[in-house]
Amino acid sequence: MAQLVLIRHGQSAWNLENRFTGWWDVNLTEKGVAEAKAAGAALAAQGYDFDVAFTSLQTRAIKTLNLVLEEMGRLWLPVTKDWRFNERHYGGLTGLDKAETAAKHGDDQVKIWRRSFDIPPPVQEKGSEFDVSSDRRYAGIPIPQTESLKDTIARALPAFDELVVPQLKAGRRVVIAAHGNSLRALVKHLSGISDTDIVEFEIPTGVPILYTLDADLKATDRRFLQF
Amino acid sequence: MAQLVLIRHGQSAWNLENRFTGWWDVNLTEKGVAEAKAAGAALAAQGYDFDVAFTSLQTRAIKTLNLVLEEMGRLWLPVTKDWRFNERHYGGLTGLDKAETAAKHGDDQVKIWRRSFDIPPPVQEKGSEFDVSSDRRYAGIPIPQTESLKDTIARALPAFDELVVPQLKAGRRVVIAAHGNSLRALVKHLSGISDTDIVEFEIPTGVPILYTLDADLKATDRRFLQF
Repeated sequence: MAQLVLIRHGQSAWNLENRFTGWWDVNLTEKGVAEAKAAGAALAAQGYDFDVAFTSLQTRAIKTLNLVLEEMGRLWLPVTKDWRFNERHYGGLTGLDKAETAAKHGDDQVKIWRRSFDIPPPVQEKGSEFDVSSDRRYAGIPIPQTESLKDTIARALPAFDELVVPQLKAGRRVVIAAHGNSLRALVKHLSGISDTDIVEFEIPTGVPILYTLDADLKATDRRFLQF
Repeated sequence: MAQLVLIRHGQSAWNLENRFTGWWDVNLTEKGVAEAKAAGAALAAQGYDFDVAFTSLQTRAIKTLNLVLEEMGRLWLPVTKDWRFNERHYGGLTGLDKAETAAKHGDDQVKIWRRSFDIPPPVQEKGSEFDVSSDRRYAGIPIPQTESLKDTIARALPAFDELVVPQLKAGRRVVIAAHGNSLRALVKHLSGISDTDIVEFEIPTGVPILYTLDADLKATDRRFLQF
């Protein structure tokens, strides 16, 4: 039996404004900070503990993890940060809010992108202010130009297999702080959810998902932390 | 030429109360948090940047590093935490304030411990409330029972040689957030300070020490960041 906890970052500035964020590095709001602290306090109060931690290269996830670990008195745990746990790259939708997206592309097209498993949005326009390709944190990394959920899964799962699975097999308790879609990738894999259903699977900000896994790392239990 | 920045953690609760802290895991005060943020903001404003970061297993140093990196927009940097960058272990003095120490051991003896390079304080009494030997963060680690500054140097320098030197030689810009005595170990080594003088070398909380090193990693310049 292995224990794995997944946490989507707390509310970010663009969650609040309902803008497509993707790889743009938006910070937590005050509410997001409070959500992360509350999650950490609740995990500690309910007896959860960890041995190793993973997160993305994005501030909102890293900060969420740090706040959780601080509340648990576990800032000293080893933390591995990997770009493959980043949010889905929304290409040309990055930075657009709901109204802008609908005005630019039409409601029907937006629905297709939101609901489809394997249709990526268009790539970013040249000179987009939300282009991260010159951000040195991604130097040497094959930055996607746009991603479907399927594309996100295709890079998140290898990171899980390579980095997390050996820790779980060694009996270590793992926490991963990441993003709506990189966590969907893990939930789809662990819980065996279909391509159609995973698109509708909503992961709230700052609410730990508690997995119990068997020796083959298949889920025997999945629940949201109650607090 | 290599760039190395050392930062002693911001003010801790026991800095404020003037108690021997050592390996006891005391948090930053509000002032300590502000010091760390100010250091990070000043580093960024003055054009400093980093590629890799190191710290101890102690909350006050890790939190200082996280606050510095957050101010610099560099939370995504890889961080290595190693017990050998921990504060000097003060043995039986841990937890005592200035008055308690003098009452228990006499002013002259206290002066000897404070000023000597190689005389460690007595070990902790059995059942001390400040014993960290059952703290699981130190599982598998040869926890000292007490340390002189010389003892602290003897475990901090190998960590520097093993973890930090290869990064500096590869041209990476390094920041280390640690403690008064583990940083004295590095300053003594890099600046060639004598056993007698290093004891008197005061490192203020939250003030970055900026080192420029030559190809042999000997210091060509050392200054405190002005801000």
